[in-house]
Amino acid sequence: MESPAVSFLLFLLITTVLLPYLSSSEPSNVFPANKHPRFLGKHSHPIKPKYQQQYRYETRYFSQQLDHFSFSDDVPRFRQRYLINNEYWAGPSRLAPIFLYCGNEGDIEWFAVNTGFLWEIAPRFGAMVLFPEHRFYGESMPYGSREEAYKNATTLSYLTAEQALADFAVFITELKRNLSAEGCPVVLFGGSYGGMLAAWMRLKYPHIAIGALASSAPILQFEDIVPPETFYNIVSNSFKRESNSCFDTIKHSWNALTSAAQREDGLRQLSKTFHLCRELKSVQDLSDWLDSAYSYLGMVNYPYPTNFLMPLPGHPIREVCRKIDNSPDGSSIVDRIFNGISVYYNYTGDVDCFELDDDPHGMDGWNWQACTEMVMPMSSDRDTSMFPAYDFDYSAYQEECRRDYQVTPRPRWITTEFGGHDIEHVLKFFGSNIIFSNGLLDPWSGGGVLKNISETIVALVAEEGAHHTDLRPSTTEDPDWLVEQRATEIKLIEGWLDSYRQKIKATFNM
Amino acid sequence: MESPAVSFLLFLLITTVLLPYLSSSEPSNVFPANKHPRFLGKHSHPIKPKYQQQYRYETRYFSQQLDHFSFSDDVPRFRQRYLINNEYWAGPSRLAPIFLYCGNEGDIEWFAVNTGFLWEIAPRFGAMVLFPEHRFYGESMPYGSREEAYKNATTLSYLTAEQALADFAVFITELKRNLSAEGCPVVLFGGSYGGMLAAWMRLKYPHIAIGALASSAPILQFEDIVPPETFYNIVSNSFKRESNSCFDTIKHSWNALTSAAQREDGLRQLSKTFHLCRELKSVQDLSDWLDSAYSYLGMVNYPYPTNFLMPLPGHPIREVCRKIDNSPDGSSIVDRIFNGISVYYNYTGDVDCFELDDDPHGMDGWNWQACTEMVMPMSSDRDTSMFPAYDFDYSAYQEECRRDYQVTPRPRWITTEFGGHDIEHVLKFFGSNIIFSNGLLDPWSGGGVLKNISETIVALVAEEGAHHTDLRPSTTEDPDWLVEQRATEIKLIEGWLDSYRQKIKATFNM
Repeated sequence: MESPAVSFLLFLLITTVLLPYLSSSEPSNVFPANKHPRFLGKHSHPIKPKYQQQYRYETRYFSQQLDHFSFSDDVPRFRQRYLINNEYWAGPSRLAPIFLYCGNEGDIEWFAVNTGFLWEIAPRFGAMVLFPEHRFYGESMPYGSREEAYKNATTLSYLTAEQALADFAVFITELKRNLSAEGCPVVLFGGSYGGMLAAWMRLKYPHIAIGALASSAPILQFEDIVPPETFYNIVSNSFKRESNSCFDTIKHSWNALTSAAQREDGLRQLSKTFHLCRELKSVQDLSDWLDSAYSYLGMVNYPYPTNFLMPLPGHPIREVCRKIDNSPDGSSIVDRIFNGISVYYNYTGDVDCFELDDDPHGMDGWNWQACTEMVMPMSSDRDTSMFPAYDFDYSAYQEECRRDYQVTPRPRWITTEFGGHDIEHVLKFFGSNIIFSNGLLDPWSGGGVLKNISETIVALVAEEGAHHTDLRPSTTEDPDWLVEQRATEIKLIEGWLDSYRQKIKATFNM
Repeated sequence: MESPAVSFLLFLLITTVLLPYLSSSEPSNVFPANKHPRFLGKHSHPIKPKYQQQYRYETRYFSQQLDHFSFSDDVPRFRQRYLINNEYWAGPSRLAPIFLYCGNEGDIEWFAVNTGFLWEIAPRFGAMVLFPEHRFYGESMPYGSREEAYKNATTLSYLTAEQALADFAVFITELKRNLSAEGCPVVLFGGSYGGMLAAWMRLKYPHIAIGALASSAPILQFEDIVPPETFYNIVSNSFKRESNSCFDTIKHSWNALTSAAQREDGLRQLSKTFHLCRELKSVQDLSDWLDSAYSYLGMVNYPYPTNFLMPLPGHPIREVCRKIDNSPDGSSIVDRIFNGISVYYNYTGDVDCFELDDDPHGMDGWNWQACTEMVMPMSSDRDTSMFPAYDFDYSAYQEECRRDYQVTPRPRWITTEFGGHDIEHVLKFFGSNIIFSNGLLDPWSGGGVLKNISETIVALVAEEGAHHTDLRPSTTEDPDWLVEQRATEIKLIEGWLDSYRQKIKATFNM
């Protein structure tokens, strides 16, 4: 059983764009070049071969406009990869549905093999399965190669959520036309950023898809819609509810680490204590490494053992805190932290030494998106967060984006284009058929839709859920609430399909 | 009293892009360069000074992104012009509404002074009045000048409906923020292409505007949604219902004109018969001139005298047919046609000679739009149309666009982006607060929404209405149906506002 890779990807934002701000005190240090994401390349490929046998699909390619919204024959086209499975599909004559996962910021095969729920329910719906890849990720590279696509702000300028949605719209329309399946209803799925895309797609393209399951989609994590402290407060609370002393130890550890580093030979000693393969150049690198782990733990705090980036026990935060709290008497804060973090980074005990940053990739797609439209303000509260205190500083953020990508972010664009403010009023009598599912352990749930908006735009909130738990493959250890949540989702989707077919039948007197 | 200029603008499409196909038999002739629109420049400016005194507004400018959907700091910004009137506005504390006209393909002052309905009802609603101009029209020129903006396909590539809608979205959001009027509901208005924008804006940006009055908006005039013959059939029927012989005379006139032209000295004789200032170079030019007039007459077939492009009597088609039918015994078809067309081109009797094409402008904005996304297929039926028979030929259309603009149209893009197929099912449980108003005399009504879709997406159909009659300034001669239609529109808009305020009050327990 594997954890969903999706969570990891959206998490890139936090680890690579925002965490540096949090943990750094020197402005010159807040967006270090070597913090650009490397996770995807490092973690996705080894997992793939194992999964490819689990779900059957064909890999195909679709020729796309690079720029849907401007018209110039000079802009080249690109090949969008998609995965397709037709074997359960009951076909156009039955108005059989098409289940489409909105590919997000990574290799689509990774999402396909990590979205077990969709595969598991497709046969009972007689559904076609489609996983189109998000432009500028995986193999769906414009300009012929990743290198060319990521060359500069001009080539990257087409990497946006709006273009990705338009890709899906054109792709679905053409595919249905080619299959004479215009009448077949499309249901969207997505987790994390993919969930945001699924929800937005339903809102912007109601003629293309009849409904969307948007799992752990923080569509409200923009501007001032939710408090910027929410993310780190949720992570911190997950530690606090296991143990106050664990929370306190972590909260005090940042100063302890800085002090330790400032001692003579301090960085060498720290490197030794933390079993690092290479000697630390700054305590910042160590803090980032710890930050990442805590936040990941908040997301993947599943109630049963998982193996996502790392093999982890069930309730992994409980285990981390047990190690921190139960370190031998007289252990220093630094020792306790090492014992705790080892649960995350070395649960199997196989690791001899840790690499903090072994695969720096340079420019990354999500960082570009975060530097253009996906500006999600994050702060860390002095009192309620166990992370170093930090107030989101938009000027610094902007400056870094200008330096790294020669681009100016548009922090208000997403709410202008997709809304978010006052969403309950806006959508109360507008739109239909969206499920916003969230787990309250997931730090991203703070930016999610947690209340029903209308009869058909509903929120499914799982108190014990982590990052899009519902999209994961089912397991024999699934708790009751998860089994029930998935059953509810299936029932809602069935309702959308029934209602759609009734409308069609009523028209044609079938 | 003036007819709405709006009709004229959307009509550019038909006269400059499609009519040439209709009336030409030689492919090499179907898109003559000299047929690019010139109407706007010729007709809008002289009318303006008169109107500017009628409605009071300030002219302001707003700095806009040229490309909302791609991110590159290299793309310049431009100044969007807008007209604003605050004097009736009851302000944020009263949640007073903002009435916004979605500027379409022309000078915004022209629309402002021709949309009397909005001005007349603003005071009773305590509404702010806004008329933002459509990019690439009027003064809202990117790249500093019309010449630069219209230079080539690269500069023109940003002239799209999607970019225009995003302009409106950003403009409204920023304006409301600056006025601390975030809570004030926005109601959209638009006629013709502006009506299409208003409807699409409500559908795509429900968080920006609470409702839209889309008058004579042919949002279904794309692809295969409505039969391509509809437009010319409606025009033809307007002539037929006045008199069968009138219809027949016009229907036979095309061959008669061609025969006349083929006689020795034929073109010179025709030029004389039609009192042309310059001798005809081809009979095609004359046919185009007649075509235009008949189609315009279909649109402006108002029941009372108007003065739009031309001073016209009430029921102008009736007058044209009277002249055609009542020409002296023994009059030739050609003579009858001249007598009829004189009603349109010379009702006052002041014209000494006619200029068929006196102000060729070269590239025009609407032609660019028609050659990119606004591909509205039009045919002329061999039997039911009085115009020359023609089957829409997409290949020829595409070829001309490539030749004239070096751009390839995307005939399926509009339905992919905005929908249209099966609209009654798609919007039955999705969306709210749109009025589609149409007059059945208006040839564009064939592409309009003519049936209620839901409780709140409604169609107002006026059997005797022409092109967005409802948006015109009221007159003492307004027929009862028009007075009633406007009253219904006011009531519906009041309902949207009441419902909005109730939601807000319920939340804040006001």
